[in-house]
Amino acid sequence: MTDGPVAILAGSGRLPLQLVQHLERSGRDHRILAFRGFVEPEIRRRAHATVALLDLRRIMSTLERWRPSVVTLVGAVSRPGFAALLGAYSLFANRNEVRDVIARGDDQMLRGAVGLLEERGYRVVGAHELAPELVVARGLAGQVAPSPQDRSTVELGLALLDSLSAFDIGQAAVLVGHRVLAIEGPEGTDRMLRRVRRLRGARFGRPARKEGGVLVKAAKRGQDLRVDMPTIGPRTVVEAAKAGLSGIAIGAGSSLLLDQADALRTADELGLFLASVDLPWMDDHEGR
Amino acid sequence: MTDGPVAILAGSGRLPLQLVQHLERSGRDHRILAFRGFVEPEIRRRAHATVALLDLRRIMSTLERWRPSVVTLVGAVSRPGFAALLGAYSLFANRNEVRDVIARGDDQMLRGAVGLLEERGYRVVGAHELAPELVVARGLAGQVAPSPQDRSTVELGLALLDSLSAFDIGQAAVLVGHRVLAIEGPEGTDRMLRRVRRLRGARFGRPARKEGGVLVKAAKRGQDLRVDMPTIGPRTVVEAAKAGLSGIAIGAGSSLLLDQADALRTADELGLFLASVDLPWMDDHEGR
Repeated sequence: MTDGPVAILAGSGRLPLQLVQHLERSGRDHRILAFRGFVEPEIRRRAHATVALLDLRRIMSTLERWRPSVVTLVGAVSRPGFAALLGAYSLFANRNEVRDVIARGDDQMLRGAVGLLEERGYRVVGAHELAPELVVARGLAGQVAPSPQDRSTVELGLALLDSLSAFDIGQAAVLVGHRVLAIEGPEGTDRMLRRVRRLRGARFGRPARKEGGVLVKAAKRGQDLRVDMPTIGPRTVVEAAKAGLSGIAIGAGSSLLLDQADALRTADELGLFLASVDLPWMDDHEGR
Repeated sequence: MTDGPVAILAGSGRLPLQLVQHLERSGRDHRILAFRGFVEPEIRRRAHATVALLDLRRIMSTLERWRPSVVTLVGAVSRPGFAALLGAYSLFANRNEVRDVIARGDDQMLRGAVGLLEERGYRVVGAHELAPELVVARGLAGQVAPSPQDRSTVELGLALLDSLSAFDIGQAAVLVGHRVLAIEGPEGTDRMLRRVRRLRGARFGRPARKEGGVLVKAAKRGQDLRVDMPTIGPRTVVEAAKAGLSGIAIGAGSSLLLDQADALRTADELGLFLASVDLPWMDDHEGR
């Protein structure tokens, strides 16, 4: 199977397209399996197969046909609701198993998907292994430098994320000084930033006054980077600016920055710092 | 000063009125100092003085006139924006001190207010000391019992809140199974519950399908219960039901439940459990 194509199981967001474009540029053979209702139009047009998220039978039979050398899961797939899971009821041994899947966290669900693929003999890799230029490098920084106060807020934010590692909750938080304004839940980073904007009294979609504060986003201690790797892009920078923040710190070596040049330029133009930060809980191999 | 009135510094929400009604019933002399723009109409009508939140001079001169035996701070006062603080600029030694106040968390700000009052010789007490019948008793429970799974989710929620104790962030979270749906920030419990309702796909203000999950709310390890004591009431129960939750767990001995009979009846009617939970980090004196 080692000379087979890369099989891309694609969800929402811009990551699937950026990965595909990278593979196209490097001439690496690939097949796209798109999750119906999740993927963006460019991926839908390029997809070699389109399936329902929970149609495990078709996902597996498609992979068997493609005989991929590696499989990667990219893009977000919001947790299916109860109704969707009941629709896939026949896949489960019993109703309690359905309840179990719902009760489990996203992390565990995604890890379960990886485990299922590995059981069938597939090698599952992360987008960062296929397209290393998307990974946030150590020392990545725009032209705006964080102030000493920003740096101490970033440290506090990392301590907060570390203490949340044991729980199935987001990978990002917004802090101003020593105060936590928001912790990311399943709503995602962009919505969390809009919440901060509203907290600051910005009305009618206008940006908040620039009151400072930082967005800190990083992989968890022990996170399987093959699924749900922390990802930001130019839109995150714009939302952070609208929320009145002074900058963004993102974990080096274990996060993805989409459209890196564009994201850095946007940060410079909006006067925000955008900097990678070393994670004390990542060993040197991972945190490269 | 021990025979002076109770001085109530009153912010928003229903707690100030419930405290005042309790003092009226028990015939205890009291004076209400209302924060302009925060208090509800019933308190505005009863207030003996109304001041701007940051007008420390008038607050202090009013207290000097009243010579209260004890002072209590009840109800919420959202953190003043930068503009309001600059308006009170003359109170601060310099601009850096203003920045410091903004950077500090709510906790520290409120503790600062208590410290300031104590420095002037006032005895500051919590609403729970003046109106013990508002405190959530050990063993408080409605007619609906939490399921074994709900109980284990509550335990996980307490562990989450405990790990957040070191940070200046909310006192509540919503979890379903092992998954954290939301952690409360400065937006407050009701808005967090509305966020959960939206996460679950409820549209146009309609309630979410009852998918389970619990609201866990409790005082932090080391929290000064004289300020910002965790408080819920019947409206919290209604919002929890609309968010599709199966119940509410609230820390015994260190939280307030407003309109207790009404809140319990509402929970029963809506099919939610409403139960107190002992906090491992409260000693017996506090967790009584």
